[in-house]
Amino acid sequence: MGNKIKADLIVCHADQLITMAGASKTPKHGCGMSRIGLIEDGAVAVKEKELIAVGLTPEVMEKVEVGPETMIINAAGKLVMPGLVDPHTHLVFAGSREHELELRLKGLHYLDILKLGGGILSTVSATRAASQQDLLQISLKYLDQMIAHGTTTVEAKSGYGLNLRDEIKTLIIHRELNTLHPVDLVSTFLGAHAVPEEYRGNPQEYVELVVGEMLPAVARDGLAEFCDVFFEDGVFDKEQSRHILISAKKLGFKLKVHADEIKSLGGAELAAEIGAVSADHLMAVSEEGIRRLAQTGTIAVLLPSTTFCMMAPQYAPARKMIDSGVAVALASDFNPGSSPVNNMQVVMGIACRQLKMKPAEVISAVTINAAHAIGRAGEVGSLETGKRADMVIFDAPNYQYLMYRFGLNLVDKVIKDGKVVVGG
Amino acid sequence: MGNKIKADLIVCHADQLITMAGASKTPKHGCGMSRIGLIEDGAVAVKEKELIAVGLTPEVMEKVEVGPETMIINAAGKLVMPGLVDPHTHLVFAGSREHELELRLKGLHYLDILKLGGGILSTVSATRAASQQDLLQISLKYLDQMIAHGTTTVEAKSGYGLNLRDEIKTLIIHRELNTLHPVDLVSTFLGAHAVPEEYRGNPQEYVELVVGEMLPAVARDGLAEFCDVFFEDGVFDKEQSRHILISAKKLGFKLKVHADEIKSLGGAELAAEIGAVSADHLMAVSEEGIRRLAQTGTIAVLLPSTTFCMMAPQYAPARKMIDSGVAVALASDFNPGSSPVNNMQVVMGIACRQLKMKPAEVISAVTINAAHAIGRAGEVGSLETGKRADMVIFDAPNYQYLMYRFGLNLVDKVIKDGKVVVGG
Ligand SMILES: [Zn+2]
Ligand SMILES: [Zn+2]
Repeated sequence: MGNKIKADLIVCHADQLITMAGASKTPKHGCGMSRIGLIEDGAVAVKEKELIAVGLTPEVMEKVEVGPETMIINAAGKLVMPGLVDPHTHLVFAGSREHELELRLKGLHYLDILKLGGGILSTVSATRAASQQDLLQISLKYLDQMIAHGTTTVEAKSGYGLNLRDEIKTLIIHRELNTLHPVDLVSTFLGAHAVPEEYRGNPQEYVELVVGEMLPAVARDGLAEFCDVFFEDGVFDKEQSRHILISAKKLGFKLKVHADEIKSLGGAELAAEIGAVSADHLMAVSEEGIRRLAQTGTIAVLLPSTTFCMMAPQYAPARKMIDSGVAVALASDFNPGSSPVNNMQVVMGIACRQLKMKPAEVISAVTINAAHAIGRAGEVGSLETGKRADMVIFDAPNYQYLMYRFGLNLVDKVIKDGKVVVGG
Repeated sequence: MGNKIKADLIVCHADQLITMAGASKTPKHGCGMSRIGLIEDGAVAVKEKELIAVGLTPEVMEKVEVGPETMIINAAGKLVMPGLVDPHTHLVFAGSREHELELRLKGLHYLDILKLGGGILSTVSATRAASQQDLLQISLKYLDQMIAHGTTTVEAKSGYGLNLRDEIKTLIIHRELNTLHPVDLVSTFLGAHAVPEEYRGNPQEYVELVVGEMLPAVARDGLAEFCDVFFEDGVFDKEQSRHILISAKKLGFKLKVHADEIKSLGGAELAAEIGAVSADHLMAVSEEGIRRLAQTGTIAVLLPSTTFCMMAPQYAPARKMIDSGVAVALASDFNPGSSPVNNMQVVMGIACRQLKMKPAEVISAVTINAAHAIGRAGEVGSLETGKRADMVIFDAPNYQYLMYRFGLNLVDKVIKDGKVVVGG
């Protein structure tokens, strides 16, 4: 008894406990994505913010001490799994763009709407005009929606400021959100999200502003961990993207690339070449790009709710990537234009039916692989001793049910850092 | 003052009030579906279960008397519209079929799974084996989910009994649900949902059982208002379907047809020929079928969440139907196999993006046209004086936002028969 740790919280008797154990060091590639560490009648024990035991209920009960203050949650009939990780969002913005739905129904595409001065540039105007306090309140509401649907860690990108002042403003909001909200936020600088109107005639000059002024300022104040670029026809080309990303790397940023979303331009290849942690979107990825992602272990972050919401004709070739040994993660891409979706359960349901990912692969893609995509696999994404006590209890008898009951929020409780923050 | 009615409840200052006024007598055909009776700064007043005033907030406040017991809900910043009507569900069943997701990902189709004795027949076994009490509890839970997402009226079909005893059991549950739950239920007899195993060798004999025993028993006890048939290759053919439906009509049933879901077999034409109130599914409807539906005013009930969940290649040609003057309604098709979806907001989001229906058309399709599809347009589906006080207050600044924020339950409050039953 003496060497047992007293647990603050025990979740026990889960019909299914999904641990994702064993993939914290390397992401789950290809067929590995079907191994999710499933335990029937599973339990976890928590001390403060940390998991101290994970396994069969009788084993866990044997390992830890239960005191009068230990909170015990009986998860019989339920599914317990790591808190969902959403590794690609554009969280901080003002305004909404529901009127673009009808434009898209009339057949206008993203680049058409962009040329009309709509799309992202209207969000840039609104975000620049918004006060820090207003943006903070809006973002807190979105984070509340996310955690209510099971997300405990999100990546968030700047990119609706597009000038030094408003990019910094956004990144400071990231930092404040991290303090104010239980959801953990990983901050990414995406100054190269679009060319702002004032540089329309001279995009190269904007690239130099990003490299010469913004990146050093962001690095100096430690406001972002990742740097990302929107590499796409009509936005930033390969040379510009490489220039920004290589400069960022020298300043210590980890890298991400918005790659091959609309056209196959070698985005995945660039991501692999420069040692990016992830290449994101990939609807138009090439065969060679897939091979390079598999070789380098660059995570493919797929965003099927974007394809769905944009009514795009073709989803990313997830099946081919997984079968080629690429480690796939899923994200919401939450943003006011192409994916106003911040519910990862919906992303999972779409992934299963449109990307043809098996339910177990989907589970890997929203937990440990998503954590790898944002450099957090040592802390979250799996339920293992020593990791953070971030988990979701779903009102579902098994993990397949989670994707089956499409459109229903099946969250029973969310536990973040050992505290019940939803459904308490 | 003397002739003013004292209101029990007033909902006022809605950013947008959608009344759907003026389509209670005939459904909204084609381009009419874009007219939704939108009022800015709108209000409704309720006395007991009935709407006594609808219009601009100052007009409504002028028309009715406000007493100390009048409940006033300020809907500023919100969208108020008729309670959603879900005109095609298979509500009462036991078990769930999440394991079929992986079978479908392996490429098996509905009829393949059916041939394996899976699919619907596994639900039939489970439903036959379940007690009335258990089925009632399960169904109440599903109705709770529905009303939590804004549905106030549903149609529900039998069809997992497939023998006299268990079909009657299901229909009695419909009646009990109507008493026990605030959601209104319209009961449909679908004995001809599939050929049960015990008649596999002789489907015609099962048809005779439906016509000779089941229909008269259901009619005698007044257990269903509609009769429906699953007219599809490998299920019931055109002659069998016509025989059942004509027999039902003679007994006083109103008619529905599961038509042209997988193959183009003239299901829409049959529906028009026999005077059915609705033809449902219609993914493979013919040009001639569309013409006949437009001529006869038969409502096309489209079920896009089924196409989505089944990963079927082709959605129903909603655009062509609307442009041809067909009155289109939308439903969830909630059932354990092809559409485990009972959230109409998700159906609306899919309809907009996959059926290319404009947001206003979607609104028509889930309110007044859906009410017409189940013979309830005189009571619900629009907010007009004298109609039932069934409405939803959505946390949305406009009706487009409802489809835009896909995957989020935007319900703020649901009012059924003048009472706040969700979000009170
Ligand atoms: Zn993005
Ligand atoms: Zn059906």
